[in-house]
Amino acid sequence: MKLIKDIWFKRRDIVSEGFDESLEYISKLIPLKIHKISSGTKCWTWKVPEKWGIKEGYIEDLKGNRLLDLKDHPLHVLSYSLPVNKVVSKEELMKHLHTDPKRPGAISFKFKYYERDWGFCIQHNKLKKFTKDKYKVFIGSKFEKGALKVGDFTIKGKSNEIIVVVAHLCHPAMANDDLSGVSVLVDVAKKLKKKNNYYTYKFLLLPETIGSIAYLSQNEDIIPKMKCGIFLEMLGNGNIHALQLSRQGSTRLDRVAEYIMKKKLDNFRKGLFRKVVCNDEMVFNGPGLDIPMISISRYPYPEYHTSDDNLKIISEKKLVESRDLVLEILDIMDSDYIPKRKFKGPVFLSGYGLWVDWQENPKLSENIEQIMLRLEGDKSVFDIAEELDMDYREVRSYLDGFYKNNLIEKKNGSFKN
Amino acid sequence: MKLIKDIWFKRRDIVSEGFDESLEYISKLIPLKIHKISSGTKCWTWKVPEKWGIKEGYIEDLKGNRLLDLKDHPLHVLSYSLPVNKVVSKEELMKHLHTDPKRPGAISFKFKYYERDWGFCIQHNKLKKFTKDKYKVFIGSKFEKGALKVGDFTIKGKSNEIIVVVAHLCHPAMANDDLSGVSVLVDVAKKLKKKNNYYTYKFLLLPETIGSIAYLSQNEDIIPKMKCGIFLEMLGNGNIHALQLSRQGSTRLDRVAEYIMKKKLDNFRKGLFRKVVCNDEMVFNGPGLDIPMISISRYPYPEYHTSDDNLKIISEKKLVESRDLVLEILDIMDSDYIPKRKFKGPVFLSGYGLWVDWQENPKLSENIEQIMLRLEGDKSVFDIAEELDMDYREVRSYLDGFYKNNLIEKKNGSFKN
Amino acid sequence: MKLIKDIWFKRRDIVSEGFDESLEYISKLIPLKIHKISSGTKCWTWKVPEKWGIKEGYIEDLKGNRLLDLKDHPLHVLSYSLPVNKVVSKEELMKHLHTDPKRPGAISFKFKYYERDWGFCIQHNKLKKFTKDKYKVFIGSKFEKGALKVGDFTIKGKSNEIIVVVAHLCHPAMANDDLSGVSVLVDVAKKLKKKNNYYTYKFLLLPETIGSIAYLSQNEDIIPKMKCGIFLEMLGNGNIHALQLSRQGSTRLDRVAEYIMKKKLDNFRKGLFRKVVCNDEMVFNGPGLDIPMISISRYPYPEYHTSDDNLKIISEKKLVESRDLVLEILDIMDSDYIPKRKFKGPVFLSGYGLWVDWQENPKLSENIEQIMLRLEGDKSVFDIAEELDMDYREVRSYLDGFYKNNLIEKKNGSFKN
Repeated sequence: MKLIKDIWFKRRDIVSEGFDESLEYISKLIPLKIHKISSGTKCWTWKVPEKWGIKEGYIEDLKGNRLLDLKDHPLHVLSYSLPVNKVVSKEELMKHLHTDPKRPGAISFKFKYYERDWGFCIQHNKLKKFTKDKYKVFIGSKFEKGALKVGDFTIKGKSNEIIVVVAHLCHPAMANDDLSGVSVLVDVAKKLKKKNNYYTYKFLLLPETIGSIAYLSQNEDIIPKMKCGIFLEMLGNGNIHALQLSRQGSTRLDRVAEYIMKKKLDNFRKGLFRKVVCNDEMVFNGPGLDIPMISISRYPYPEYHTSDDNLKIISEKKLVESRDLVLEILDIMDSDYIPKRKFKGPVFLSGYGLWVDWQENPKLSENIEQIMLRLEGDKSVFDIAEELDMDYREVRSYLDGFYKNNLIEKKNGSFKN
Repeated sequence: MKLIKDIWFKRRDIVSEGFDESLEYISKLIPLKIHKISSGTKCWTWKVPEKWGIKEGYIEDLKGNRLLDLKDHPLHVLSYSLPVNKVVSKEELMKHLHTDPKRPGAISFKFKYYERDWGFCIQHNKLKKFTKDKYKVFIGSKFEKGALKVGDFTIKGKSNEIIVVVAHLCHPAMANDDLSGVSVLVDVAKKLKKKNNYYTYKFLLLPETIGSIAYLSQNEDIIPKMKCGIFLEMLGNGNIHALQLSRQGSTRLDRVAEYIMKKKLDNFRKGLFRKVVCNDEMVFNGPGLDIPMISISRYPYPEYHTSDDNLKIISEKKLVESRDLVLEILDIMDSDYIPKRKFKGPVFLSGYGLWVDWQENPKLSENIEQIMLRLEGDKSVFDIAEELDMDYREVRSYLDGFYKNNLIEKKNGSFKN
Repeated sequence: MKLIKDIWFKRRDIVSEGFDESLEYISKLIPLKIHKISSGTKCWTWKVPEKWGIKEGYIEDLKGNRLLDLKDHPLHVLSYSLPVNKVVSKEELMKHLHTDPKRPGAISFKFKYYERDWGFCIQHNKLKKFTKDKYKVFIGSKFEKGALKVGDFTIKGKSNEIIVVVAHLCHPAMANDDLSGVSVLVDVAKKLKKKNNYYTYKFLLLPETIGSIAYLSQNEDIIPKMKCGIFLEMLGNGNIHALQLSRQGSTRLDRVAEYIMKKKLDNFRKGLFRKVVCNDEMVFNGPGLDIPMISISRYPYPEYHTSDDNLKIISEKKLVESRDLVLEILDIMDSDYIPKRKFKGPVFLSGYGLWVDWQENPKLSENIEQIMLRLEGDKSVFDIAEELDMDYREVRSYLDGFYKNNLIEKKNGSFKN
C-alpha cells in the first residue's frame, strides 16, 4: 500500500523518466535486475518507441485564460502526444479533446503510442466551457532516443523450469491499474524469497504489451524454460476476483487456480482467455510462445482508465486477500508431486499406521481406497485431491505417510501442464 | 430444364437403348467419355445384367378389349420384366399387377432387375375394371448381351485428388428422379470447366447402384484418388434441401456443405448416412472404398416413383438454387488453404495495414486475435471461419493480407478430410 | 441348494477346520486343486493369520447361570477372538459384547482378524438381561500354525487367457453370504466343464480378501494371464440383481454383463466399482494387478451379517436365475469373434442367400447395411449387436452366413477388453 501511495501519481508512460524512477523505487524493496532495450530496437513485428517526456501543456483562449493545464493533473495531456504550439479553431480543437462520457466528472486516460497525434484529456462535463471560436494549444512534449526498461527479480529454485509472475508498471497517475498488481507481485516475491522452492520464479515489472514483447524477443532462450505464468492486475478495488483462464484453458495452473478460488473465496467469476480482461497474456500465451498464462484481477470497476482510479478505491484488505490467494496457488504448484506405487494389492493399512477411523475423519476414511487406486504414476497429489474433491494438504500429508513407509516413491514437478 | 424436357420420357432402363441415347444427348452438352462394361462382367460380388428392351406389352380380356397398353405409358411394363404371352386367370394376373395404393391415380414405377418375373404397373384405382375371369397377357421384352454405360466428364486440376459428383440417368419416364440431379450436375460441370481448379473434378452419369459398382470395380486404380463426393438427386421439386451426411459424418465436405446450407438457405434438414435417401453413396462410401460421399436432394416428395414424377413438378428456380449451392460448396473446397504463421508474438497490425476499425467491421475486429491464435498450421481458412462463425471469404481475404506481408505461408489442399 | 444346506452351519472362519472341511465337501462336486499357504507367510503387505479354533465359550453370572453359550450358535463368539477366562465387571463386559441394534432379535456376525481382542456376539435385545455387576467370561479359542486354503478348479480352453470366477467360502453359519455365491459358482463350473471353451476358466473358492491376496501373491505368474473376472456373492435372497462394474468400468465384460442384464431381467441396478458391495475385486482389480472384475450380487438384504442370514432367506429359483445369467454372459464372452470383410462394395445379398425379407424380420432387414459397414476388423459380433441394439445370437448367426460364403474371415478372442 505504501508503494502505491509513493509512486501512483508519477508520469509512468511506457518509456519515460517516471517509469524509470518507479523501477528504481521498487528495486529498494526487491532486488531487481533492470533490462534495457533501446528505442528503435526491432522486436519481432514491433519496434521500441522513443522516450517521451513533457513538462508543460495547456489550452488557453486568446485572452490567455487557461481552460486546461497539465499542472493540474498528469492525465490532461494524451500520453505520447505530439508537441503542438498554435492557434486552432474550436472545431479542430474538439477533434483533439478526449473525454469519457460515461464518467463525465473524471479526466479520461488516453494514449497514442503508435498512430501519433496531439491531444488533451478532459472531464466530459467541462466541454461546455469551450464557448470561443479560437484557442491557443500548447504541448511541450519531447521524443528522444531512450530505453524501455524491464524490472526482473528471479528466485532460483531446484528446477530450472520457470513460473513467471507479471504486472505492468506503466499508466501515469493511476493506482489500481496496475500498481495494485505491482504491489501484490512485490509482496508475493518477498514471501517466496524466504522459501526453499522447487520451481524458479521470475517476477517481471514492465510497460504493457511492448514491455513483454521487447523483453521476450531479446531473451528468446528463456521462453522454453517458462512453464506457465500469472498476470496480476487491478486487485485493490472492491469487486470479486476474476480468473481468466490460459489459452489452453485447462493446464495444471488453470486447474489449481480454480481449485483454490473455489475453496477460499465465497464467490468469483471465471472466463476464457481474452474474455475477461486483455493484457500481456496475449504475448506470453500468444503465437510462437504459447506459455500458459492465467490472469487474476478484480476487473471490471467503474473508475477504470479515468482520474478516479486513485487511492480512494484501493483497499489494503483486498490486496492482502489477493496476495494470499496467489501464495496458495503457488504453494500447490510448488509442493505437488507424483506418488508412484511400490506395493501390490490393497495395502494392509493397520500394519503401517495408515488406518483411518471412519468416525474421526469420514471423508479421508471413505476415500482411502480411491487414493490407493490412483498411485500409478500418472496423477499428482493435486490431481488426486481435485478428482476426489478433497483438501490438497490432507491428501499430501496422508501420502507422505505412504512415503515414510516406503510404499510409494515421489516424482517432483515433471508432470505435464 | 431443356435437358429434362428433351429426354425425360425415354425408356432409360439400366442397360437399354434409351439409356444409351440419353448419354449421347448429354455428350453434346459436356464432352463425355463413355465407359462400357459388358453384360455378364463380374463386378465384385455383382454381375452386369443383360440389355433389356421392349416394344409391345398389353393386357386384354378374351374379347380383345385392351385394359392396359404399353403404348399409353412407358411405365406400364415392369422394368426388366420377363416376356410372357398367355392366358391367365384373374387370380394369377393380380399377383403380377403392381400399384401404389397411396397414389391411386398414378402408375407406379417398379422393377425386377435381379429376381426376375413378368409384371405390369397400373393405377391402383383401375384394378376395379378387372371383372373378368381370364385375361390375355403379352410382354414382348427382349434380353440380349449388351453393355452398361457410364458417362464420365473429368476436369483436370492442379492436384490429382478427385472430387466426384454423381447422378443417375436411369428410371424410364421419370423427371425429378433423377434427371433433375443430372441437370444440376451438367450445369455445375459447365461452370467448373471455365475455372482454374485446384482439385480434379469427375462427373459421373450412370445407372443406379450397379453403375457405380461396375465402373469402380473395373477402375479400381481411381478409388484411392477420390477424396470425396457428392450425389445429386431429386432437386427440381418444391421441398427444402436435405443434406445426407457421409458415413464418416464430419469430414471437411460434410462440414462445408452444412456451413453453406446454414448461410444460404432459410431452412434445410440434415440426416445421417442412409437415413435420408438411399443411393450410390452405399457403393462409394461403402465397404472397402469408403470415399466420403454426401448426398444433396429435396427428398421426399409425394410423386416419388410414380407417373406423377413428371415435368409438372419441376421448377427451374429450384434447379438454379441447388446448382448455386453446389458451386458455393465446391468453391470453398477448392480455394481453402492452411495458413502457417511465420511471425512470433501478436502482430503489430497497424505497421502492416492490417488494423481493422471496430466501428467499420466489428465482427472482424473482435476476431483478429482469435484468427492470429489459429495460424499454427493445423487449421485451414475454412476451419477458422467455421470455428469463429465468420464468413469464409472475409477470413480468406484478411489472411491474404498476412500472406502479402510475408507473415504466413500457405499450404493448399493437403489437409485431412 | 443341497450344498448350502449341508455346510452352511459350519464354523467357516478364514483359516479353520470348518473351512477345510467345506473345501473337502465341494471337491466331491467339482475336482478342486487345493492351494495351501502357511500361517505367517508374507503376502505383499499382508501376512497369513494363524489357524483359529474354538470348542467352548460362554458368559455366566457368578452363580453359574449361563447368559450366552457358544453351543447355542456358532456366531456367539467373535471370529478370531482371543482366549479369555476371568471375572469381569459388567462395564468391561459391555465393551466386548457386539450387537446389531438395527436387527435386535438376531445375533450379529463380527470378527477381529488383525486387531485382536476377545468378544462375544449377541442379540441386541438380550442386553437387558445383564443385570448383575460381575460375570465370568470364558473363551477357549486356540491359535495355531496352520494353512490358509484356496480351492481352484480350472477348465483348460483353446486359449491360455483366463476368465476367473470367484466366491468366498468363509463366514461361519451364514447361508447367503456367501454360500449362495459358492453354489452358483459350482453350478456354472459344472456346465462349462461340458463345453468346448475358447477361454480357460478358473473357479476360485477362498476366504475373503486375505484368500485372494495369499493366492495371487504366491502365484504371481498367473496374474498376466487373467483377462477378467466375476465375483459372485449373495445371490439367494429376494432382491433384484446388482451389477457392480469393474474399476475400468467399460471393459468388454462390463458391457456384456450389462447387455445381458438389460435383455434378460425386468429390473436390475448398476453401480460403479466399490459403490455397490465391497469384496475381493479390490484385490484382483486393485493396485498392481488391475484385472477387470465385476461383481454380481443381490445386495443389499436386511439379514446381512446376522444369524438371520440362514436357509429361510435362500430361494432355489433365485439361484437358478443367477446361474443362467452368468452362463449367458460367459457364452457371449466365449463365442464372440471379430468378422473381417473380404469383399468390396455392398454385397449382392440375394446372390448368396443372405437377403432378408423386411416383412419376415424387419429389424435384421433394416440393419443389414449397418452390419456390412462394421466388418472392418475393429468390431466384434458383440460390439455390432450392442451398437445396433440387436440380439447377439441373431447377429452371430447372420454373420456365420457371410463366413460360409467366404465373405468374411473370423478372428477369435484377440479383441481388447
